[in-house]
Amino acid sequence: MVVSDMVEAGERRIEWAARSMPVLEAIGAGFAQDRPLDGLRIAACLHVTAETAVLMGALRAGGAEIALAASNPLSTQDDVAAALASYGIEVHARAGVDKDAYYRHIHQALDIGPHIVLDDGCDLVNILHTERVELLGDVAGGCEETTTGIIRLRQMASEDALRFPMVAVNDTRTKRMFDNRYGTGQSTLDGIMRATNVLLAGRTVVVAGFGFCGRGVAERAKGLGARVIVTEIDPVKALDASLQGYDVRPMAAAAEVGDVFITVTGNRDVVRAEHLAVMKDGAILANAGHFDVEIDVRALEEMAREAHFGIRPNTDEYVLQDGRRLLLLAEGRLVNLTAAEGHPAAVMDMSFSAQALAVTWLAAESANLTPGVYDVPADIDAEVARLKLAATGIDIDALTDEQEDYLHSWRLGS
Amino acid sequence: MVVSDMVEAGERRIEWAARSMPVLEAIGAGFAQDRPLDGLRIAACLHVTAETAVLMGALRAGGAEIALAASNPLSTQDDVAAALASYGIEVHARAGVDKDAYYRHIHQALDIGPHIVLDDGCDLVNILHTERVELLGDVAGGCEETTTGIIRLRQMASEDALRFPMVAVNDTRTKRMFDNRYGTGQSTLDGIMRATNVLLAGRTVVVAGFGFCGRGVAERAKGLGARVIVTEIDPVKALDASLQGYDVRPMAAAAEVGDVFITVTGNRDVVRAEHLAVMKDGAILANAGHFDVEIDVRALEEMAREAHFGIRPNTDEYVLQDGRRLLLLAEGRLVNLTAAEGHPAAVMDMSFSAQALAVTWLAAESANLTPGVYDVPADIDAEVARLKLAATGIDIDALTDEQEDYLHSWRLGS
Amino acid sequence: MVVSDMVEAGERRIEWAARSMPVLEAIGAGFAQDRPLDGLRIAACLHVTAETAVLMGALRAGGAEIALAASNPLSTQDDVAAALASYGIEVHARAGVDKDAYYRHIHQALDIGPHIVLDDGCDLVNILHTERVELLGDVAGGCEETTTGIIRLRQMASEDALRFPMVAVNDTRTKRMFDNRYGTGQSTLDGIMRATNVLLAGRTVVVAGFGFCGRGVAERAKGLGARVIVTEIDPVKALDASLQGYDVRPMAAAAEVGDVFITVTGNRDVVRAEHLAVMKDGAILANAGHFDVEIDVRALEEMAREAHFGIRPNTDEYVLQDGRRLLLLAEGRLVNLTAAEGHPAAVMDMSFSAQALAVTWLAAESANLTPGVYDVPADIDAEVARLKLAATGIDIDALTDEQEDYLHSWRLGS
Amino acid sequence: MVVSDMVEAGERRIEWAARSMPVLEAIGAGFAQDRPLDGLRIAACLHVTAETAVLMGALRAGGAEIALAASNPLSTQDDVAAALASYGIEVHARAGVDKDAYYRHIHQALDIGPHIVLDDGCDLVNILHTERVELLGDVAGGCEETTTGIIRLRQMASEDALRFPMVAVNDTRTKRMFDNRYGTGQSTLDGIMRATNVLLAGRTVVVAGFGFCGRGVAERAKGLGARVIVTEIDPVKALDASLQGYDVRPMAAAAEVGDVFITVTGNRDVVRAEHLAVMKDGAILANAGHFDVEIDVRALEEMAREAHFGIRPNTDEYVLQDGRRLLLLAEGRLVNLTAAEGHPAAVMDMSFSAQALAVTWLAAESANLTPGVYDVPADIDAEVARLKLAATGIDIDALTDEQEDYLHSWRLGS
Repeated sequence: MVVSDMVEAGERRIEWAARSMPVLEAIGAGFAQDRPLDGLRIAACLHVTAETAVLMGALRAGGAEIALAASNPLSTQDDVAAALASYGIEVHARAGVDKDAYYRHIHQALDIGPHIVLDDGCDLVNILHTERVELLGDVAGGCEETTTGIIRLRQMASEDALRFPMVAVNDTRTKRMFDNRYGTGQSTLDGIMRATNVLLAGRTVVVAGFGFCGRGVAERAKGLGARVIVTEIDPVKALDASLQGYDVRPMAAAAEVGDVFITVTGNRDVVRAEHLAVMKDGAILANAGHFDVEIDVRALEEMAREAHFGIRPNTDEYVLQDGRRLLLLAEGRLVNLTAAEGHPAAVMDMSFSAQALAVTWLAAESANLTPGVYDVPADIDAEVARLKLAATGIDIDALTDEQEDYLHSWRLGS
Repeated sequence: MVVSDMVEAGERRIEWAARSMPVLEAIGAGFAQDRPLDGLRIAACLHVTAETAVLMGALRAGGAEIALAASNPLSTQDDVAAALASYGIEVHARAGVDKDAYYRHIHQALDIGPHIVLDDGCDLVNILHTERVELLGDVAGGCEETTTGIIRLRQMASEDALRFPMVAVNDTRTKRMFDNRYGTGQSTLDGIMRATNVLLAGRTVVVAGFGFCGRGVAERAKGLGARVIVTEIDPVKALDASLQGYDVRPMAAAAEVGDVFITVTGNRDVVRAEHLAVMKDGAILANAGHFDVEIDVRALEEMAREAHFGIRPNTDEYVLQDGRRLLLLAEGRLVNLTAAEGHPAAVMDMSFSAQALAVTWLAAESANLTPGVYDVPADIDAEVARLKLAATGIDIDALTDEQEDYLHSWRLGS
Repeated sequence: MVVSDMVEAGERRIEWAARSMPVLEAIGAGFAQDRPLDGLRIAACLHVTAETAVLMGALRAGGAEIALAASNPLSTQDDVAAALASYGIEVHARAGVDKDAYYRHIHQALDIGPHIVLDDGCDLVNILHTERVELLGDVAGGCEETTTGIIRLRQMASEDALRFPMVAVNDTRTKRMFDNRYGTGQSTLDGIMRATNVLLAGRTVVVAGFGFCGRGVAERAKGLGARVIVTEIDPVKALDASLQGYDVRPMAAAAEVGDVFITVTGNRDVVRAEHLAVMKDGAILANAGHFDVEIDVRALEEMAREAHFGIRPNTDEYVLQDGRRLLLLAEGRLVNLTAAEGHPAAVMDMSFSAQALAVTWLAAESANLTPGVYDVPADIDAEVARLKLAATGIDIDALTDEQEDYLHSWRLGS
Repeated sequence: MVVSDMVEAGERRIEWAARSMPVLEAIGAGFAQDRPLDGLRIAACLHVTAETAVLMGALRAGGAEIALAASNPLSTQDDVAAALASYGIEVHARAGVDKDAYYRHIHQALDIGPHIVLDDGCDLVNILHTERVELLGDVAGGCEETTTGIIRLRQMASEDALRFPMVAVNDTRTKRMFDNRYGTGQSTLDGIMRATNVLLAGRTVVVAGFGFCGRGVAERAKGLGARVIVTEIDPVKALDASLQGYDVRPMAAAAEVGDVFITVTGNRDVVRAEHLAVMKDGAILANAGHFDVEIDVRALEEMAREAHFGIRPNTDEYVLQDGRRLLLLAEGRLVNLTAAEGHPAAVMDMSFSAQALAVTWLAAESANLTPGVYDVPADIDAEVARLKLAATGIDIDALTDEQEDYLHSWRLGS
């Protein structure tokens, strides 16, 4: 494809996503008037997709100068990258690059000398703190988009290693409830269907992890007719899964009966050699967690006597010594981004809107903030939800004065 | 029924409940050995039911002296009260007493001169702070069981009116997720079925409030085949309800189409004259919130040209001027406690176990605590869930050493 | 209770049921004008409940003379029986009578010398063919309400033993889809909750049989948060259950893991000694099939070293030799009728409306019918559904002329 | 792609499908031994997909000579066609051909002079009866796969126009319950997600038609979090949808509020000008019925002031005079075949196994059959289900002798 065609294809994609992102579009329109980000430089490490492009557009409309690297080598939409570049945004990303190029791209994005950083998995912030410490002086703060990244940031903060305030965009109610649950839920199952075209009704789907993402994945698998087994390490979440009607078992027991395995824990080696050893012929392995460490792909490679790559799109077959065939989707990387198209724009609308508002809040407040992990202010959260309801045409109730009083008066008895 | 029969009937009920409360039974057995509450006086204002009796038994086994009043005039099981009295626990409760007797009973329970208080709706704590201030000196702290009570306590704390530490038992994950969601959910629908025997499949059920309780009620109504409309005042919860597939509307719009209305908001006048005015003939009104203020019963009475009480158990019919008939269940009081039997013992097992452990924690730690509302320590929560899983025969995974390391190491990249 | 009080209580119940039976009420109003049943004598063996009373009222309004016996000794509502008698309908039924009285009542109803019979389980028709053959000459035909009864009638027909036309009211789409599925589904779970107050969320419920009733029971158990295991003998139904996401196993395997067992097969000894032998302590046994033969109660009695009757309403506890306790609900009889109130009036509205219209059809057509089992004419079925939709305020589409043509023209290509 | 590559790609697809078709594979293995179709010529008009190829393989293994045309110009997988040709099966099909070529291909398949015909929509049978009557003499019978085709065949039979026996494979329980419900259900939603990547949670999905296919589509839409509105013309189906908790409305009312419309009725003009006129901006239109007549595409074209084709894969945008944009998927053709990959192999395993066994039954029995539409013999249906359960590793119960007796003895009382 020649460049102008790619730009056009990218623009079409971005325009399509923007239709489902009315909240971010409205915020961007406001930014264009108020220019709250004039003079700010932003380095971002995000999935380079059409939805991200709408966010970049809003931030740029607000006056920011932006350099963008990809947070995952497999998720980059090259046409979107081309379109973004044509808008004057620095983009360092190409689909399918290797690890070296991936890190080089992050360094190149950091070269902008950022005041604000946007991260998705904490790799950019990590490099900033280890290899690019000379840039730390200018950084006023940043936002982190994923559960995985927040875990790493909190660990850094607890070791006093974090050097600027980071807003846990991931932890907003709008992000956790909607993006993690509904976005990951639908797109993960969508990815599995595109990769395999397997009938889910009547199959046993094992979901490892019952956080917001895992819950969403379990709901969608059940909604497609599967029997769902949940594995967990947290007793409260395990009990919750059980009371929601899911079958809860340790992975060792689930491994023997599952037809499809989906990891979404934020941890490594959730499916490992001991589990692979007992799986049924034809079992399907997919990861919906941020990093490609949840399924021990190396163990799988070592146990296989042969492998057939690409027997379906994003589907590799590993034949074990005893003839059992295991199917690995998307090389163990995020199946929803690789085999499908990631979160639908309608959910990204909410988390990216929170992110856009969080950036303006950081810009205004960073002088008053010490290094650490901050929640998104609750009113940003409520504002995003309110805008989304309005865009969807849903009215809700408001408290009457008597109800306001009642809530604030502890003296009223039974 | 003669007293000895009542005692026996109560004991049978308590024994039945205890079967579904293995966690609390295990904690009680431990208490009997360790006597962590020796010498402590406890004043409790709780629903006087079989499940509460199992909690009282555990606390008494731990060495506490207890006086118990009812937190709701309608929920008292007189046979259970008789059995508790026969165990040597002071009980001030009788089913169906009027408001005066209700408050008198609370005063009588307070006469014990409590070190620890257990409350369910904040009435006892309220009286302590307003009418029995002379007792405040001895009080080391307390526990509150309900969302409604916590709202009142936080308001007191924000006004510096709260004089001792209160543990928000309601806010534990085990309580909110299980008791509020699964317990209120099932028992509310159970109460409506017992009162009306109405077919729920195909009916439009309006659930006012989408907190943990409301979510549980909505799930069970949907699970019984109803179309569910949710009303809310919080945009984030409203959006969540919408994305879970519920129809979200303001009450004014829902009032016109609902067949059954269930309030579970913690606020007053959620269903009021303007809504009653537009409801369909035969609409059913039920409240599952703590206090009987959510449906404006006075407005209903004023709008009615006649009323037929008890046309079914716990069902009163109000005939409006235009001939429409509205059916009020349980006089607008908690329908799950009045028309059914309240939360099944299996969920109370979890919240009361958390409460029992919170009491020992308060006993040990109160010297170090200032007045305020405290969360239940997270390890109590996890411990209760762990015991419950074990009692149910459910195994879960544990982190491997490598996984522990991974979670704590922010330097590991993608 | 004095008789006049019982009559009044019965009338109140009937009036309450009638509110949810707008279709049957409309049919009754039409009957009162047209008198299509003038001069006909009807012997009925049905559950003597408020809903049946509304049917009796419609038939009587149509001109019929009626004698009614109870189809189940446990389901009779004595106040309804009193009210019916006060209307001039012969009633031979009393709650809780023994087997002898049960059969005597059927004989007494038959003494009317029926032209039309209404049966619910085929006992009346059976007695007519074996012990009261002298009455066969006058019988023009009848209706049968249950799956169980139809099985027996078809067997009779295949042996040339059936002597008059019987309409399989049970087999109408309105009956099978609604009454069996939604009515049995809700009321069975309702009965189990009333009897035990057990939390269903997270429990393993075993449903034996996946016909229309079993499907309804499984849906409601799932809707209340249970994990559902289905047992079946028919491979097509078993496969269907599996593809709907249920766990399908033989009873021997289900017996080891179930918390609640519900039989709804129409066959005997579905739960028998070999299954009781491996059940968990505290397992609950309930039957929702027509006859009390599905759970082998005799085997349970023989295996028990002691029994405690009525530890909860409609709940008996059997303690086995090894100390395990099994809980039998409603003595193994229909749990939805015994522990709850049977099908909600709203579903009975549909099956009894079909029955009322089937009686007029029989009255008009019996001269042209040979002995055998007949389907309810399809237009009766559609008429009942149409009236029900209208009463619920639901509009549906009608075919356009072009669409009618399209459906009838096989020559239109792709 | 060069031919050898296409053959190889096709073989890989077929091998993949065969893995999920263990029943048909087992039947094919039996055929290879018994050669029940030796000397028979078969003309088939089916979707030329990998699953069909497995069926062709089984029939060929049984000894048949086969000519295959495509039943839909859009669904042909060219690589599969190439692979089939390489096996010695005559294939007349190519993706994307026009109407003329479509009919020419059917004629070419008929040129084989078939003894047995396999049809999918009744076009081949139609042509045989109108344009190729000279071939009718040799035809012993055939099978029809779709609801639409059966409607046309029954109409032909009622007009005495049908000249040989046709087996309604569509009407087997295994086909209707599984293929129509689970296959169409999943693949239709899959197609919509691939075409649009729209979030379904919280959207209003309108499903036109509540037959087996419509039920499956509604279940999957609900399972993905949508609010579902059902439209129907049959009052019994409409009532069933309502009692399952769906919102039932006429299309005129649904058109105003729907976000996604899915037609699956078997009729024409289900969505037409009057509906398009009131839809919301951005509404999505998809058809899952057999023919592309359910959405009135011509009306849409006439109402649009401009159109943008392919703004997403299989998505065309029509801009109406007032600026509202409507999105038509797959040009109004079967969205599950065009935008996704049709029914997953696991369901096709069942319907094609029934078809393979029906062919041998026809071969054996056709001499005894008069022209007309025949049900698949019930034992074929049960056999397919039994083989499928075995392949899935699911055991079920068998009747004991006592249970067999009970079912056959109408004399046993209550």
